[in-house]
Amino acid sequence: MTDTTDTPAETFRPEARSPRGFADKRARDLRAERTILEAVSAVYERYGFEALDTGAFEYADALGKFLPDSDRPNEGVFALQDDDDQWMALRYDLTAPLARFAAQNWETLPKPFRRYAFGPVWRNEKPGPGRFRQFIQCDADTVGSARPEADAEIIAMAVEGLEAAGLPRGAAVLKINNRKLLNGLLTAAGADSAGQKLAVLRAVDKLDRLGVEGVRLLLGEGRLDESGDFTKGAGLTGKAVDQVLDFVQAGAGGRAATLDNIARVVAGSAEGDEGLLELSRIDAALSSLGIADDQAIVDPSIVRGLEYYTGAVFEAELLLSTTDEKGNKVTFGSIGGGGRYDDLVARFTGTVTPATGFSFGVSRLAAALRAAGQEAGGLARGPVVVIAFDDAHMPEYFKVVGELRAAGIPAEVYLGTSGMRPQMKYADRRLSPAAIMLGGDEIAAGTVTIKDLDLGRELASGVADNAAWKAERPGQQTIPRGELVAAVRKIIGS
Amino acid sequence: MTDTTDTPAETFRPEARSPRGFADKRARDLRAERTILEAVSAVYERYGFEALDTGAFEYADALGKFLPDSDRPNEGVFALQDDDDQWMALRYDLTAPLARFAAQNWETLPKPFRRYAFGPVWRNEKPGPGRFRQFIQCDADTVGSARPEADAEIIAMAVEGLEAAGLPRGAAVLKINNRKLLNGLLTAAGADSAGQKLAVLRAVDKLDRLGVEGVRLLLGEGRLDESGDFTKGAGLTGKAVDQVLDFVQAGAGGRAATLDNIARVVAGSAEGDEGLLELSRIDAALSSLGIADDQAIVDPSIVRGLEYYTGAVFEAELLLSTTDEKGNKVTFGSIGGGGRYDDLVARFTGTVTPATGFSFGVSRLAAALRAAGQEAGGLARGPVVVIAFDDAHMPEYFKVVGELRAAGIPAEVYLGTSGMRPQMKYADRRLSPAAIMLGGDEIAAGTVTIKDLDLGRELASGVADNAAWKAERPGQQTIPRGELVAAVRKIIGS
Repeated sequence: MTDTTDTPAETFRPEARSPRGFADKRARDLRAERTILEAVSAVYERYGFEALDTGAFEYADALGKFLPDSDRPNEGVFALQDDDDQWMALRYDLTAPLARFAAQNWETLPKPFRRYAFGPVWRNEKPGPGRFRQFIQCDADTVGSARPEADAEIIAMAVEGLEAAGLPRGAAVLKINNRKLLNGLLTAAGADSAGQKLAVLRAVDKLDRLGVEGVRLLLGEGRLDESGDFTKGAGLTGKAVDQVLDFVQAGAGGRAATLDNIARVVAGSAEGDEGLLELSRIDAALSSLGIADDQAIVDPSIVRGLEYYTGAVFEAELLLSTTDEKGNKVTFGSIGGGGRYDDLVARFTGTVTPATGFSFGVSRLAAALRAAGQEAGGLARGPVVVIAFDDAHMPEYFKVVGELRAAGIPAEVYLGTSGMRPQMKYADRRLSPAAIMLGGDEIAAGTVTIKDLDLGRELASGVADNAAWKAERPGQQTIPRGELVAAVRKIIGS
Repeated sequence: MTDTTDTPAETFRPEARSPRGFADKRARDLRAERTILEAVSAVYERYGFEALDTGAFEYADALGKFLPDSDRPNEGVFALQDDDDQWMALRYDLTAPLARFAAQNWETLPKPFRRYAFGPVWRNEKPGPGRFRQFIQCDADTVGSARPEADAEIIAMAVEGLEAAGLPRGAAVLKINNRKLLNGLLTAAGADSAGQKLAVLRAVDKLDRLGVEGVRLLLGEGRLDESGDFTKGAGLTGKAVDQVLDFVQAGAGGRAATLDNIARVVAGSAEGDEGLLELSRIDAALSSLGIADDQAIVDPSIVRGLEYYTGAVFEAELLLSTTDEKGNKVTFGSIGGGGRYDDLVARFTGTVTPATGFSFGVSRLAAALRAAGQEAGGLARGPVVVIAFDDAHMPEYFKVVGELRAAGIPAEVYLGTSGMRPQMKYADRRLSPAAIMLGGDEIAAGTVTIKDLDLGRELASGVADNAAWKAERPGQQTIPRGELVAAVRKIIGS
């Protein structure tokens, strides 16, 4: 099984390395991700959403990534040409495959179609620290309902899902806005060209970074930044600038109070009134579902991307924080988002199909939970390790692990050929709770010796008081063989 | 969000279709696969195997699929060139990424390294009915132990894992063989060229299809098949042919009896004796672990691929069967396999590293279980559907689904805009157990009406006796609102 080059006849040894931007995930990471996905899936299914998984590839044109005047697909995706010359690309999100699936199966689907999905997505981008080219997303979407209540369900489900995933109440908040509000306001102010609207959205999106006065400049004539670069503004009139700033600052904590504030600002615009009515109905449904003001708020400053969304938009913001090496507080910010998009299925069918959804980054949430000391799934413990002293006693060792496994306790016989100390080191590396020793004398006497490795680790780290612990949980004990399972259970606390 | 070509300015509408050989999986399929994977993972973790997941891509040279004298990787994989010109390919199995990972991290891994993994693999092959280019595999391997007991653990774990996945005892059997037995026999017979050994393996692999006399011809001078094609034989002497045929037919039901038979046939060959000793130790460990003769047998006719394996080989054979359209019995055959491979890590490091593992096809097992009427996870039920009569009552509908969900019952409000009949049809398509009706009168009276949809389906299919069922479970009942959860629980039997 070695590859050889033709000339010279030398053995070719590839370097063992993973491609850039692709991570190997060990037990701890996987445990965290699986715990999150199981908890969220249970919530989503309770909301009546059915699971769907599409293949890794889509045709590039179906992804909207195909440029008809070019013979290569867009950058940003991993694309290759199939043997029938069609370009395929790995999915870069879970929404585009849903749109393709819904368009393909629309006639036979139960409608509205409610589905959730999770799995890897791929982005052909420059990798960096914490930036991967493959990561896990989890999405839920309703296709075929224009009702604001469909948005409300998605929001409520996102709230419940993130709490089930391990975010304690108050550790995240769903922020809701509606594109129609700002659109209506701009139309009423006569600033309704597509370019001007886009410039306004871009300006508002910088509120966090530039503050109100910075955004004011970008909404008006433009802004000169510290490096001397000038950014041309949206060119709104002074009155319109004031209105936009009033709007984005209309957040008042509770949803009802914010909606009152918004009503004052957008009054008189048909599109704004429509957006306001939608938000009111979302608020009512959320209240019926028991989603309180600290779980989901209305925040008019949320932009959530520049295109694509046509009505309600939502963003899940993590309020968890951690501290960096220098002791500074680090916040995690957005963990996911979504909103109403009515044109994705129309790309295929030509028929506008209202849809709404929410997506969050599973790997990102797992990392945030860990950094905040709230790791999903807890530590991935290793198995109880039976020390291998003597090949002749292997059958006995296997009986012991068989007993432990039958009792639901992960266990294994050490299957290397090293001596006692490396075996103990192995058990320690695996985070094993205990090592079992079964020498010839013990087998003859019908006993077994158990070494409590947790205790050893706790004593070593100074967590446990030596004398007190030893009285309660001796570091090493020899007991009758029949008491093995009970003694191990006591150590692992199960 | 529509793509337009430059000239003529017409809307481009891609056809909604999935790439050939890639399946969309709906709730039922996913439920079956997830049930299998959860059950198998629990068993593997109880055996002390830790989870690992590597990225979808490996460098093509690491997969052993790179031909140094060609500028394109081998066929059979999905490959593309990264922006630094290195060829990457999607993994085609989970063993090659493990070998790369183990070689890359060998110094810091606990050794022996026991890991399990599951996930999609990709094969760039011609798709066909039931043949996909993406499917789910589940693997477990021990890297760094030459002990036959490591093979035994893998075998025992495969047996327990497949039973946990839903295969009842007796529905599958693990068949064990050892490459060294036939090798030793051939060496003793003077037929030890690589070409001759390969020809013998190929011949033995056809035992099922050609029978003993067909294989006898292929082991000797050759065989003329019915179409008139001649296959050149392995050229063994008559005595050696008899020995090989004695060997492959040495299976005797119980492991001990088969080992006795094998001992008689391979006696006198050092490599054969070594293989026999390994099988004896595997048998002893399996017996200690409580794996009986009907769960794992020794079968000298198992070949399991032509290259790659260096010692013990195993194959999991499904004994389940179903009948095709014509009423003929259809057996499923092999569902997975594995064995000892000592050279995979050496491809990278140059150091032979003993390893052993087992792999099975998750999608394939799910399909077999379904065909045999033993579907993993059972039916994917839909949610209880609250009928939407009146927009004004939406808040009330949402309170009802909130109550049901809080009780752990999947539920949703119908969020389309259709009338009563389409809503009932929707609930039926979702396989909903019940529909909830809450009109203005009911809201005023504090009642709720429940329609038992399971009953409707059972009556329609003739399963249930109309009168008897109606007495026990009325098809439609109006009850006090406070009794809603209890009444729904009764219908879904939870």
